Order: sequence, then structure tokens, then C-alpha cells
Amino acid sequence: RINGQRLWDSLMDMAKIGPGVRGGNNRQTLTDSDKEGRELFARWCDEQGLTMGVDSMGNMFARREGTDPDALPVMVGSHLDTQPTGGKYDGVLGVLGGLEVIRTLNDLGIKTKHPIEVVNWTNEEGTRFAPAMVASGVFAGVHTQEWAYDRTDAEGKKLGDELARIGFKGDEPVGKRKLHAFFELHIEQGPILEDEGIDIGVVTHGQGLKWIQITLTGKESHTGSTPMPKRINAGLGMARVTELVNKIALEHGPHGVGAIGHLELYPNSRNIIPGKTVFTVDFRHPDKANLEEMEAKLRKGAKEIADEIGLGLEIEQTGGFDPVTFDDGCVTAIRSAAEELGYSHRNIVSGAGHDACWINRVAPTAMVMCPCVDGLSHNEDEEITKEWATAGADVLFHAVVETAGI
Amino acid sequence: RINGQRLWDSLMDMAKIGPGVRGGNNRQTLTDSDKEGRELFARWCDEQGLTMGVDSMGNMFARREGTDPDALPVMVGSHLDTQPTGGKYDGVLGVLGGLEVIRTLNDLGIKTKHPIEVVNWTNEEGTRFAPAMVASGVFAGVHTQEWAYDRTDAEGKKLGDELARIGFKGDEPVGKRKLHAFFELHIEQGPILEDEGIDIGVVTHGQGLKWIQITLTGKESHTGSTPMPKRINAGLGMARVTELVNKIALEHGPHGVGAIGHLELYPNSRNIIPGKTVFTVDFRHPDKANLEEMEAKLRKGAKEIADEIGLGLEIEQTGGFDPVTFDDGCVTAIRSAAEELGYSHRNIVSGAGHDACWINRVAPTAMVMCPCVDGLSHNEDEEITKEWATAGADVLFHAVVETAGI
Ligand SMILES: NC(=O)NCCC(=O)O
Ligand SMILES: NC(=O)NCCC(=O)O
Repeated sequence: RINGQRLWDSLMDMAKIGPGVRGGNNRQTLTDSDKEGRELFARWCDEQGLTMGVDSMGNMFARREGTDPDALPVMVGSHLDTQPTGGKYDGVLGVLGGLEVIRTLNDLGIKTKHPIEVVNWTNEEGTRFAPAMVASGVFAGVHTQEWAYDRTDAEGKKLGDELARIGFKGDEPVGKRKLHAFFELHIEQGPILEDEGIDIGVVTHGQGLKWIQITLTGKESHTGSTPMPKRINAGLGMARVTELVNKIALEHGPHGVGAIGHLELYPNSRNIIPGKTVFTVDFRHPDKANLEEMEAKLRKGAKEIADEIGLGLEIEQTGGFDPVTFDDGCVTAIRSAAEELGYSHRNIVSGAGHDACWINRVAPTAMVMCPCVDGLSHNEDEEITKEWATAGADVLFHAVVETAGI
Repeated sequence: RINGQRLWDSLMDMAKIGPGVRGGNNRQTLTDSDKEGRELFARWCDEQGLTMGVDSMGNMFARREGTDPDALPVMVGSHLDTQPTGGKYDGVLGVLGGLEVIRTLNDLGIKTKHPIEVVNWTNEEGTRFAPAMVASGVFAGVHTQEWAYDRTDAEGKKLGDELARIGFKGDEPVGKRKLHAFFELHIEQGPILEDEGIDIGVVTHGQGLKWIQITLTGKESHTGSTPMPKRINAGLGMARVTELVNKIALEHGPHGVGAIGHLELYPNSRNIIPGKTVFTVDFRHPDKANLEEMEAKLRKGAKEIADEIGLGLEIEQTGGFDPVTFDDGCVTAIRSAAEELGYSHRNIVSGAGHDACWINRVAPTAMVMCPCVDGLSHNEDEEITKEWATAGADVLFHAVVETAGI
């Protein structure tokens, strides 16, 4: 069994870096706080005798050698970056849960056949630089590194430059490491496990996602002296698309979901009719055909809305992944571990995207989930109990050791 | 007659300060560009032998003495600050038109009985610091100076501090000057005069305005893993209020108008359901009872929308003025001047708010309007012709001289 108190203490220590305003965290990717978090993680890995490698996307790999020099590593981890108003566990639990696996192996003096590597993937959240999970995506060959380096934040800074700035643009080519398997522990970020009083989610699938960026172009003009029929109000178009997104999601319920989380209005002055707006629709569904249909309805409906008001319309997909089916063997390893340890468990579909969704393309992969209070995540009030974290890390430990072999 | 070419050249010189990105201007109030624009205006006034006074709200008064030492001044002017994506004429034409009146009097060696003062009012636009027309409002006793100083911009800077920073917090108490009359020349900012091919708008009334700031509070949560029924989406509420504002304005048409020009979404991340949004509704109507009714419908409808989604709701009026009836004598002076000079004219209601709307409370006041291309304003593409500007300034000149007496 892992040491739940030690895991919890590390979670609380990491949460001191990049504090939020309400008890959560704002440790966005490639900021000074992210650098500080990475350095603390590197120090902890060093204390455990691990060898750190950093690739040119800033992904960090801390390796514990195995007994078989030819065996590929079993990788375990998640991400240390957070949302601007994020919680203390989203991603962090997976990285520090991986570290706890290593610490426990060291405590018990267990040697595994396969090496074990704990990974911290760069920019999982995708808030500062879209899309989410960009570095695991490059690792899995989904994006090129050049494209990823070119992603810009709201201030126009490039991902590649910010990586160099914080000193985490490593030498190792991305995707060089071949893996025996990958495991990721994560909080559910949804309400199912807590509602049903279940300790462990055995993640069999991940739902698909589309990020669709829409630009509506109208005409800036005076809010007082422009007659209603002369207005070409981009903000009104945005409002109608927001309602449409909600309607489409409900039509594809209960599994389909949709919202607009990010939008900019130009020039954003109280007495100017908005001349332009740019916003991103986030659609998700566990079934690919449904997801495609949701996008098709959006494109058709947005066109009608734009035409009715007289707005220019541009639609661009800026992120996305297909629904994922995780590896049978890895899923079974997790289910067996939960069973063996006496934790209640159920199969679950991940509502969020995770680095595991991309790594699943290049290595046998699965995920363990633990409940979170009220299903709340991407919120500073995100909360879990020490017991839930302990159960998740215990299951992770057993699945990893089982897969790495003794 | 005034010198139209000289007026036009001055307009073009002023437009070089704080240029926009598309040929217009970004010379927002109390920025370094505003300071530069003020200094150019002061230089021009100095060249005409005027005495400059600056009050503690940064209002600039350039005085030409009259022949009667006891006579109150006839004041003429408008504002030099612009929208972030503003035009070259909104406000500027009124100030430089006033200067052209002085230049022409000097050219012709005409002495008036009443002194004439050209004024540049601080922060007419209200974009950087709400509300609009704040300094003429303090002059007219509508707001206190302390309250005005406390207005903050998006970065949290205070109006009073910014006034001191650019060196235009003058010594003169605000509202000290008593006036014989006030005249303001302005572009129409609407399509009526151009559509009807009329040279001069004789402004008899100004419509009323309400700026109503609404805050909707929901719950930040994950866009992927939060089931639709668990969402408390502040962005969806904002969308519904936007549609409601449009509907209310149409119900009160053709005179009522309404839009939302400014909004902030929090935390504005693609994969977070918006937990909060703050936005400002701009409602206008020439009839007070209608304007009140529009507000009442908004309050009722916003409450229903918030309740249906489960959102917290706060409503606060952050700006506003009642519909205005301008002074009969001043209006007649303008109409007679247009008549005498052979310009076509019609009565018109101002769709926008103007400093004249506040000054009307403390002195006999009226406005002259000239057409603008396509009725477009609060847009960098705002355009007028030299002939329109000349006609407007000519009418202003004759009305001012008539009122100031020879
Ligand atoms: N787990 C998580 O919140 N990932 C961010 C990508 C997403 O929005 O699903
Ligand atoms: N004239 C003008 O644009 N004034 C700004 C105040 C308003 O929005 O009406």
C-alpha cells in the first residue's frame, strides 16, 4: 500500500506554488509558477534517485531503472499546469500519484523488470495556449512540434518562446521514448462516482471533443444614434450562437454537452455596437457520429444566424480528438487492482480530455479515476478527500507493478 | 463666413495625434495622446491671443474678451477625446469649429459684447471611465467631483489620478464660470441628414439614456465532464439577456434603441463553463416614460432568465440622463443662421448624448449638427466632407456672434 499521508502532503506543498485567489491554483503553463512547480517536482524526483530527461516540448520524464535492460518503461503521470482558476488536484494528483508509486517501491526495496517513468506533460489545460494536451499530442505524432511552438497566448507570446524562457526546452527529441504501457490517475471532474459512493472509476473510454472557433464580423457603430434596422450587431449573433450551442447539446443528451467558455468582443465599449466577436464552442460526445452531427448543426445554424443579421462568418476547428477506447489489458490491470485491494469500482467514460487519450495511440494505455466533491473541477473550489486520493494511488501502484513485473 | 480649408487642415492635424489602426483615432481620455491633443489645442488658442483656464476636472476654457466687462461669456465647444476605435470628427469638430469662430472673428477684427470661450470637456466618450460626459456633468452639478475622481478604468486606474498624471488637474473650481449661452457643433452620428440631403440639423431635443450594468453569477465547472443539468452557465444567461435587450428595443421602436457593447466573461477559458459575466446594457429613447418602461422590462426579464438558469443577479445603473429639450432662444439662433446663410435645415433629435445635454441644465444651450457618411460613428471609418464641416461651422459662427452681440 502507498503512503496516503505523504501523497497528501506533497499535493499540499505543490498547491503553495501559483496560488489562486480562493484556495485553488493559478499555475498556468509556461509561467514562472509553472517553472517553480516543475523545479519542485524535479527536486522530489532527484531525492528518489530518478534520472530526469526533458524533451523539446518540455515534457519531463523521471526514470527508475528496471532489472531487464531491454524492457521498455511503464510510464505513469499527468500534468502540473492548472487552469487560471483551477483546483489543486486536476493533473497534479496523477503526477504526484506516480511519484508516490516510486517512493513506495523505494521504501519496500522492490525492483521491477520494466523501468518506471513518471511524466509531467506540458500544457494539458489548453487555456493559455489552445489546444489542450498539446505536448502529449506532439509526443503521439498528432501535431508537429513546429505547429505547437507557434501557438500564441492572448498577449501574442509563442509557446516555443515561453518554453525556452522558463528553461524547459529540453534536448531530447519528442516521442523518442517507446513505452510498454501508460497509466494516468485523475480526478473524475464529474459527479458519477461520488453520487454512487464508488471509490474507483475504471476508465474504459474517453469522449470526443471539438473546439470550434467562430468569428462574427458586423459593423461598429454608435449605440445611441444608429437606428435598429441599420445595426449589424456581432454581439447579438454571438448570443444566438450561444443559445444554439445549448440547444444542440440538449438534443444530443444525455451524453452530448456543449458551451462557450471563451469569447472576445470588439471594441468592447459601452456605446459601440460590437463590430466583431471571436469565441470558441466546446462540444463533446462519447460517440463520433453524434459529435460530427453536432458540428454540422452548428455550422448550418451559425450560417443562418449570420445571414439573418448580415454578419460575416468564419469557422475554424482549433482543437479536437475522437472518442477513445482504452487498452483492454491496461483496463483489466486497473480493474483487478481495485478488486484485489477491496475498493468498490465501476466502468466509466472520461468526460474530459487527458494526455492518456493521445498516448493511447502509441502505447497500451488506461486511466484510474477517483471521485471529486460535487463533480466540481476547473474551479478553485475543486476538492477531494485524502481517502479518495489514497485509494486511487493504491490502485495505480498495483496496476503499475503488475504491468512492470517483479 | 468661416475659413473651411483652415478648419479642415486643423481637423487633419489633430487626427495625427493618437492615430487608430484603420485611419481613425484612438485618443482615449487622459492618456498620453489626449495630453498631446490638449497641448496642440492650447498652442492654437495661444496663437489667437486667448487666455486659457483649466478647472480641476481638466476642462479647458480658452477665452476671448468681450467689450462689456460685465457680460457673461458665450461658450462654444465639445470634446477632443475619442473612442478606442473612433473617428476624426466626433467631438473634435465641435472644439475646432469653436476655434474657427475665434480665428474668423480675429481675421475680421470683430469685437463682441460678450466674451467668447472655446471649451474642451474632459472624458465625453465614457469608454475608459464610465459614465460618458462626466466632466460636463460635474460642471452642471449632476455629479460630485469626488465621485468622478473615483471612476476607474479596466486596469483599476482612477480618473483623478490620471488627470494629475497628464498635468491637467487645474486649479479652477468646477462650475465656477457662469454662462450667457452654450453652443455645440457635432456630427449627427446617424443617417437622417445624409439620407435626406440636408446640410444642417437644428437640434431641438436629445434622447435619454440608461446604462444598466448587469452581473450574472453561475458556477465555474468543467465543460467536458459537467452534465448539462448540473451547469449554471453565466454565459448562457448573458446570451438570453442580449436577445431580450434587442427585443425590448424593437418593441419601443422606431425611436427606442438598445444593445450590449461591453462585456466581460470570467474566467474566460475554453474549457470552463462561465462562472460570472458583467456587461452593460445601453438603452435610449427620446421619451422618458418609454425609457423607464424599457428598464422595467429588462429588470423583470433578466430576473426570469437568472431564475430559470439558477444564476445570481445584480443590476446597477452606471450612467444615464433624461431626455433633453434645448433652449428655444438658442435653437432659434441656429435655425435663423442656417436660414440666413441659405443652408437647407431640419429639426432633429440627438441620438447620442453630448456635453450640451448637461450644460443645458445651467445655461441656455443648443446644438448644430452636420451629416456624416452612412450615419457611421464610433468607428474608425467615420467620415464627413469639408463642405459639411464648413456649413456647420458657418452656422455656429453666425449663431454665436448673434448671441454674443456686436
Ligand atoms: N482534464 C482536463 O481538464 N483536461 C483539459 C482538457 C479538456 O478540456 O478536457
Ligand atoms: N456623442 C457621443 O458619441 N457621445 C458619447 C456618449 C453617448 O454614448 O451618447
